[in-house]
Amino acid sequence: MAADKMILLDCYVSMFGMRVRIALAEKGIRYHYKEENLANKSQLLLQMNPVHKKVPVLIHNGKPISESLIIVQYIDELWHDKNPLMPSDPYQRAQARFWGDYIDKKIYDPGRRIWTTKGQEQEKAKKEFIEILKILEGELGDKPYYGGEEFGYVDVALVPFYSWFYAFEICGNFKIETDCPKLIAWAKRCMERETVAKSIGDPHRIYDFVVLMKKRLGIE
Amino acid sequence: MAADKMILLDCYVSMFGMRVRIALAEKGIRYHYKEENLANKSQLLLQMNPVHKKVPVLIHNGKPISESLIIVQYIDELWHDKNPLMPSDPYQRAQARFWGDYIDKKIYDPGRRIWTTKGQEQEKAKKEFIEILKILEGELGDKPYYGGEEFGYVDVALVPFYSWFYAFEICGNFKIETDCPKLIAWAKRCMERETVAKSIGDPHRIYDFVVLMKKRLGIE
Repeated sequence: MAADKMILLDCYVSMFGMRVRIALAEKGIRYHYKEENLANKSQLLLQMNPVHKKVPVLIHNGKPISESLIIVQYIDELWHDKNPLMPSDPYQRAQARFWGDYIDKKIYDPGRRIWTTKGQEQEKAKKEFIEILKILEGELGDKPYYGGEEFGYVDVALVPFYSWFYAFEICGNFKIETDCPKLIAWAKRCMERETVAKSIGDPHRIYDFVVLMKKRLGIE
Repeated sequence: MAADKMILLDCYVSMFGMRVRIALAEKGIRYHYKEENLANKSQLLLQMNPVHKKVPVLIHNGKPISESLIIVQYIDELWHDKNPLMPSDPYQRAQARFWGDYIDKKIYDPGRRIWTTKGQEQEKAKKEFIEILKILEGELGDKPYYGGEEFGYVDVALVPFYSWFYAFEICGNFKIETDCPKLIAWAKRCMERETVAKSIGDPHRIYDFVVLMKKRLGIE
């Protein structure tokens, strides 16, 4: 598939975009990266994802695919032989989808509220956030990765949030490792993979982005 | 797979449960149906879906699968030869997942607000609901089903909501067909399939349920 033309519409700080970057890196696929300014979205983005108008969008030979976990599954189905991300057993696959979906539904919102609110609201957000991480830590158990011995789909879904932990911790004045040491150990294990390390945002740049956004939103 | 033991924890009025019933019917799989009382959930439900505590849950040989579209994909992957629901082409499969996900994220909430609110709030819910249905009607276009000539995954995801349209229309004093005639024609086409007709809730029973719930919630 050397002639495949891949364009990724993405945003550096997007945890959803990072998922796609990791999946592409795992498969060794070269692509053209286009940074979007979400305050002034490109015509290409609006045209390629008219329904949600969101990054990431992967454009494969001119055809767009949207929604990060759907893109990750698409990449994994097309290039399944190299570093398969989805388990081969249908039941394990359903479980992987369940946890990917759980991460999608649960983490983003309390995470966002940690840096966009203050006082009691922020305390509530931190509590919710930690509760969800504890459930995810419980699901991990003593396995090295969510799928067992090999890095896979659920790891790809979750690990990008780790790049935001520093910003959450500074804004919320708390330490995630205190409550979730095994989860942090897992994240560090994932970061040892070059495919993850090079695809994940730099925590300090993400923190700078958060500071900028707080100013724009008039918080503090 | 004659020895497979299938139990479905479900609730008659659940559009999410109906999806699983349709998928099982399409594959000709026999199962034991257990009606849950959502006001007093069974120990089995709490044990089988401890994370969300929601129906539907499919228990296949003792192992639970939760989240309706994940269950539908699981059933389709295990029994793919009979009435395949997912397209065989990876790009079409990604598109099917995209629309399934869109339906999941967008329809339930405005639908619920049609019967749980009044006045301006209700008008807003109706407007939102119709806007979403129009997008879905646009995606259908002139095809008989979402995937083309054959009944498939997106049809399974969407058609259960049709059983609630009567309750929405009575509560909201509007007619969905006025704005979305092609969508209604599609729903009627789906209802001609025995697998759909026998799996979908009776609109009058759903309306009775809505009336009961409105009383319990103290609405009107």
